Amino acid sequence: MFKTFISIAALVLFCLGNALADDYFSDQFIEKVSALRDQALLDTTAYDITESLTTEVGARLGGSENDAKAVAWAVAKFKELGFDKVYTEPVTFPRWVRGVETAEILSPYPHHIKITALGGSLATPKKGLKGEIIHFATIEDLEDADPTLIKGKITFISNRMQRAKNGSGYGKANGARYKAAFVTAQKGGIGAIIRSIGTDNNRDPHTGGMKSYDRNAETGEIRLYKKGEIVPAGAISNPDADLLVNMLKRNKPIIFKYTLGSHWDGQYTSQNVIGEITGREKPHEVVIIGGHLDSWDLGTGAIDDASGCAITMASAKLIKDSGIQPYRTIRVVLWANEEYGLSGARAYAKAHANKLEQHIIGAESDFGAAPIYAIASNVSDESLPIIAKMAELLAPLGIGYAGNNGRSGADISPLKKMGMATMGLYQDGSNYFDLHHTPDDTMDKIVAEEIAQNVAAWVVFVSLAAEYTGDFGFKLNK
Amino acid sequence: MFKTFISIAALVLFCLGNALADDYFSDQFIEKVSALRDQALLDTTAYDITESLTTEVGARLGGSENDAKAVAWAVAKFKELGFDKVYTEPVTFPRWVRGVETAEILSPYPHHIKITALGGSLATPKKGLKGEIIHFATIEDLEDADPTLIKGKITFISNRMQRAKNGSGYGKANGARYKAAFVTAQKGGIGAIIRSIGTDNNRDPHTGGMKSYDRNAETGEIRLYKKGEIVPAGAISNPDADLLVNMLKRNKPIIFKYTLGSHWDGQYTSQNVIGEITGREKPHEVVIIGGHLDSWDLGTGAIDDASGCAITMASAKLIKDSGIQPYRTIRVVLWANEEYGLSGARAYAKAHANKLEQHIIGAESDFGAAPIYAIASNVSDESLPIIAKMAELLAPLGIGYAGNNGRSGADISPLKKMGMATMGLYQDGSNYFDLHHTPDDTMDKIVAEEIAQNVAAWVVFVSLAAEYTGDFGFKLNK
Repeated sequence: MFKTFISIAALVLFCLGNALADDYFSDQFIEKVSALRDQALLDTTAYDITESLTTEVGARLGGSENDAKAVAWAVAKFKELGFDKVYTEPVTFPRWVRGVETAEILSPYPHHIKITALGGSLATPKKGLKGEIIHFATIEDLEDADPTLIKGKITFISNRMQRAKNGSGYGKANGARYKAAFVTAQKGGIGAIIRSIGTDNNRDPHTGGMKSYDRNAETGEIRLYKKGEIVPAGAISNPDADLLVNMLKRNKPIIFKYTLGSHWDGQYTSQNVIGEITGREKPHEVVIIGGHLDSWDLGTGAIDDASGCAITMASAKLIKDSGIQPYRTIRVVLWANEEYGLSGARAYAKAHANKLEQHIIGAESDFGAAPIYAIASNVSDESLPIIAKMAELLAPLGIGYAGNNGRSGADISPLKKMGMATMGLYQDGSNYFDLHHTPDDTMDKIVAEEIAQNVAAWVVFVSLAAEYTGDFGFKLNK
Repeated sequence: MFKTFISIAALVLFCLGNALADDYFSDQFIEKVSALRDQALLDTTAYDITESLTTEVGARLGGSENDAKAVAWAVAKFKELGFDKVYTEPVTFPRWVRGVETAEILSPYPHHIKITALGGSLATPKKGLKGEIIHFATIEDLEDADPTLIKGKITFISNRMQRAKNGSGYGKANGARYKAAFVTAQKGGIGAIIRSIGTDNNRDPHTGGMKSYDRNAETGEIRLYKKGEIVPAGAISNPDADLLVNMLKRNKPIIFKYTLGSHWDGQYTSQNVIGEITGREKPHEVVIIGGHLDSWDLGTGAIDDASGCAITMASAKLIKDSGIQPYRTIRVVLWANEEYGLSGARAYAKAHANKLEQHIIGAESDFGAAPIYAIASNVSDESLPIIAKMAELLAPLGIGYAGNNGRSGADISPLKKMGMATMGLYQDGSNYFDLHHTPDDTMDKIVAEEIAQNVAAWVVFVSLAAEYTGDFGFKLNK
């Protein structure tokens, strides 16, 4: 079904504009890009960058000690890679700290359970929170439930995320993670646990952000929720969720106890770290790419998102090293604290609000390091011939075109909302949610050939996008 | 290669004795067994038993609170299943307790590391053990190393276990786990960490027993090693071992710190739990089968070895329920504390030393719940026609014959050494060491159709073995 969609979109695209694109790029340039694409398939720069960040820094939760280490690492790495300009921009956000995490089933059958706090959760009492489990299959069931059933209890949502190449199972399951603590509190519950939003059967739960504050729509100011507005919330692994579901079939009350030390701890100022390859004609106009520098604290953030940082850094470096100096600047932004606030992306959009039109097109790599199988644009019809030329050069990598209504990364979304054109380079996410937000997100999961394929694709997108002298339709999404 | 071996062995076997076997069993009996085999493929008894033990008891380390719960569960389950006779026999052993487990790399690049104590390890100082890492690729390299290199350091062995259907990678890699603490102490080292003996890339390390005591060959008495004879020893996960190996390439000293609270804690008396289907002619002569009731404490012991208990219990129950009352007794033994002492097996062999000849043949199921692909015997030539008949009935299940020099389970080994004939029912172990001795050994890993295939195979072996009026060659191995 999806494949058919790609084929039709690709056909329309090629009919629309392929001949036109040849007006924009010299044969020599296209040959150079093609050669660079093929060279990138054998290049280890992105693999090496990922290994460097995960080994020399490791876990780097926004606001943690390693946040600052990651910023220092990124500045040094951009310089080492030969970027023309390297700088940082401040990003301030409320710091969240994890703390102790324990859980157990007390009765009818005692078991130790692995739990991890959801990002933004408040602490339980120090001696733990104890209560009877009330089970819901989905967040919608919890939302529909009579509060008298929930009062004084610990809710448990057991919905299981489904595996899909495009990661579509995530959005369907993720409401449980995002809303359980809030909805439970509204209905008088005392705690919330969820089945991890993940596709694996490993015993380590998946963390991830939850609704834990209000943001003032005008000022952007954050008001953190207090006890009572949300309950302490944690995720348990798929195997432990299965255990609970099996135990519930026995129709005996299940008493669960857990302790979370997670809490907010003042303000922290991190940095977006930015490296640029300066454009030859319009240095102030940029193609903005990147990944997020922060990670969750459980793994070393290899697939989320050292690899995205590495893929985009490597693609810009390879372009520069090949002798291409494009028409416009390539700006690689390594975003701060994506994971529990999108803080870097919001700060950037705010700081650059008066020069948004200089952002010609944007894209983020934030879905691991498995091969790219499609691109999808979000550009003006007039610029579709450029996209067609990209698609033509990407076809040898097994990459199709998925239409002009594409997704792009979370850190790109504030700029996209403000009108910037975007590109999505879709990675095969079949196994991504086995590892996402868990201790298993480590360097050994990166396959050298696969991450190199990503760089090859980004080299094509970035070099053509930065060389194109027209624009991709700013205010397209306004 | 292995397949060829099976084929030749099977050919020889069938030529040897197929016609002869027909003298031993009536057509009616063989038809009944065949029907029971096919019925077993659809039966959920073993799956349900595994679910019951892992849900209602869970982790059950020898000597822990759950050890006693597992014994009570097993007695009740045997009775519920309708066994003719249910009893227990005491098994006393030194109790080992795990305690706290933390680890970190302090420099050059700080990381939290997951560690788990090896069974039998002593504790570190309460504030942890800190030292420089010295790396060896294998236990042999450590054994060959100059002690002056090791003095005052923490040894790290990085050998990685290879995946294989028959689990042959385990024996090759496992020397590191068994001997590292002992060899390190002999050479003046202060601590030992090893790469987990496992084939997965999950972040949870694999525990498992290590050399931690001497056993008096005559009396069987145990003398536990003291501090200085062994060092505190733990396993780290494959991803963390990869991280250390990557870090070592940077040629900077690595300072590692870990804390283990593991220690010996007096004596404990558990029980072998035994259920019998009484033989019609020779009730005191037995076919002895079973699995071990204990498990490591990290998972719920689904594949190691709730499934082995369940497969053998279910096969005996199905035989009884079918109306077959065999010539000899079927004795199912759920062994105590296999994991860090083989305590139940040793106690049984000692307690039954004066009636060993009553044990006609023995087998254990202790390699998970994946399908059986071959059987291998260890019997007299005279009884090979019986094995041939078993193989004939097992062929429709995709099971071949792997010769008359077969492996059998660890709990069977003391009886085997004393001369008992044995049978091995070989399970596909390709994925077994992804889970073995980790928190991931949980019920969700059991596939209903696969565990039923095991029961179908055991039904054939057990019913023919117990009906056969000859013997399988006692003292064969003496």
